[in-house]
Amino acid sequence: MYRIFKPTLFIDLKRVVKNLERMLEKAEKSNVKFRPHFKTHQSLMIGNIFRKYGVKAITVSSLDMALYFAKDGWDDITVAFPVNIIEIDKINFLASKIELNLLFDSIDAVNIISKNLKGNVNGYIKIDTGYNRAGVYYKDLTKIKKIVRQLIKQNKIKFKGLLSHFGHTYYSKNNSEIKETYHTSVEILNDIKSKLKDIHSNIEISIGDTPSCSLINDFSGVDEIRPGNFIFYDYKMLSLNVCREEDIAVAVACPVISIYEDRKEILVYCGAIHLSKDSIKINGKELYGIPVISCKNGWGKIEKGNFVKSLSQEHGLLKVTEKFIRNVKIGDIIFIIPIHSCLTADALKSYVSLDGKLIDHM
Amino acid sequence: MYRIFKPTLFIDLKRVVKNLERMLEKAEKSNVKFRPHFKTHQSLMIGNIFRKYGVKAITVSSLDMALYFAKDGWDDITVAFPVNIIEIDKINFLASKIELNLLFDSIDAVNIISKNLKGNVNGYIKIDTGYNRAGVYYKDLTKIKKIVRQLIKQNKIKFKGLLSHFGHTYYSKNNSEIKETYHTSVEILNDIKSKLKDIHSNIEISIGDTPSCSLINDFSGVDEIRPGNFIFYDYKMLSLNVCREEDIAVAVACPVISIYEDRKEILVYCGAIHLSKDSIKINGKELYGIPVISCKNGWGKIEKGNFVKSLSQEHGLLKVTEKFIRNVKIGDIIFIIPIHSCLTADALKSYVSLDGKLIDHM
Repeated sequence: MYRIFKPTLFIDLKRVVKNLERMLEKAEKSNVKFRPHFKTHQSLMIGNIFRKYGVKAITVSSLDMALYFAKDGWDDITVAFPVNIIEIDKINFLASKIELNLLFDSIDAVNIISKNLKGNVNGYIKIDTGYNRAGVYYKDLTKIKKIVRQLIKQNKIKFKGLLSHFGHTYYSKNNSEIKETYHTSVEILNDIKSKLKDIHSNIEISIGDTPSCSLINDFSGVDEIRPGNFIFYDYKMLSLNVCREEDIAVAVACPVISIYEDRKEILVYCGAIHLSKDSIKINGKELYGIPVISCKNGWGKIEKGNFVKSLSQEHGLLKVTEKFIRNVKIGDIIFIIPIHSCLTADALKSYVSLDGKLIDHM
Repeated sequence: MYRIFKPTLFIDLKRVVKNLERMLEKAEKSNVKFRPHFKTHQSLMIGNIFRKYGVKAITVSSLDMALYFAKDGWDDITVAFPVNIIEIDKINFLASKIELNLLFDSIDAVNIISKNLKGNVNGYIKIDTGYNRAGVYYKDLTKIKKIVRQLIKQNKIKFKGLLSHFGHTYYSKNNSEIKETYHTSVEILNDIKSKLKDIHSNIEISIGDTPSCSLINDFSGVDEIRPGNFIFYDYKMLSLNVCREEDIAVAVACPVISIYEDRKEILVYCGAIHLSKDSIKINGKELYGIPVISCKNGWGKIEKGNFVKSLSQEHGLLKVTEKFIRNVKIGDIIFIIPIHSCLTADALKSYVSLDGKLIDHM
């Protein structure tokens, strides 16, 4: 195996492929367009796996990420972030090269962008179905109509439809709640679509959070799905019960530095700058990752009672069982399953496959 | 001013210099060695400011960081992290070039390192005075004595003394609590020192958290201080009342993307991958940063009622006052004062000075 000296993100490519195949099959069965979000992996090499499976359209979260993938031949990209008007030069560059899909949630943005556009882009209106992060709130039909009318008026913007991210599924208590949020949100979008039919006849609906996309099999009422996290999954998704442990495709290998037997704690070289400080609260405890023993083919199984208790810049402190302690010594490598794989991948900036190959990250 | 298109970390170098001068003056008055922790800034250019003020010895948090600064001429470096035995090649390289100070908190680490050492290093025993992260617990005198005896036995390791980080000061409710933790911890270390006097006669005491070092004026009983965060400070330090608002030397400039007047919220391009996901809880609310309006010479003053409410990968959602909303429009640049400047600097990987010069980060 690849020699590890410091926190290193490992990737199980077989799991990546399985996660991709499963999602692709679903999209095909439902006859929806599959436009995976590449913000999770941010990797040209992982992007190529998607390409091999016929994926042609992608989603990214910044114009810089769009540039990174456009340079590698991706020519149909949605930037799933309301347009940043001051990056107009990047927008114009991309518009001259690829099919660029932008998101709008204000009249001002539509006006400023259209005034400064040199090439053609596609435009979606971003709808907030209850997550309350970005987008026009679904109840504000007056504003929605106003923005859509303004988008349609523009020569250089082709209005495509409604785009939403049901991010509130991440805060669900169980699978039924996720499905309920999904169905309510899809209903909301279709209701808006029907109310806009006098303004525009051909309105696409694009959605795409991993919890919904993992649990829903029939995407009726939707034209496009944009999940991202599903390609790796993580402990957050496992705790939401939207993936199985054997679907999680990344884990951070890290050196064991010290063992404090009295307090059943282990110090590892793996801190907030490696894992990110994302956490979840389970039974009143804040967890920053789940440590597992390494095994011949990668990382071992999750065992109850082991978790990352705290993270500082470079220090990770594990709370572990007697059994876990017995199985490790200083200088060993253990793995940590991240709470949020997207942020961990972004922090570590590269991957190593289980057979020791280096894989790029933007 | 420097043109901003995406999240960019700005640095007020005048404040950096003032923070440095204040800490230096204190160290001089108390006649303690000043060995600042460079993990906060991780910058050669900022390192040079320290150099101009006569600083010769530094602290870092990883061997890679030691290599980065050693290459720039720093030749007396403490790696304030219990030694990672599998990075022995880096240790041997550094030992051949510079005065390298390592931390030990287990007999195993002492034995393994000394067996593989090619050059000479200095060794400290890391003591845990109650923070319970790394180090030998102060009450375990048997273990402390065992490790110190083992360190003294080694030809290639020169035993220097006791090193501790009073990280529990970060969780204090007020200044008295910080001072109490400091005094108790210094007493603990001196007590250990006196109990070790039959084993070794010349034992240094090295300490160094920013809260203590900012509040304490008389460092009696201490030989060396190693604060790091003080050079920038941040909102966490302000909330602990160990710095003033005008001491905070870094803030993230970020574009305003959308304004949601109904919910008094603003979407900015600045997410968890820029600010880090560190937060503090104040009055039951989790805060991820403090937004302030930009002004002629940098960033404006903190005003009550404005805070970063949530962060996703690239999205930052601000909860703001009516007044704040009135003062911004999309495309504007606002600033966010980070909760934890070390993690924000590590995430953004470079700085821009207020007069527009780019400053390196490791």
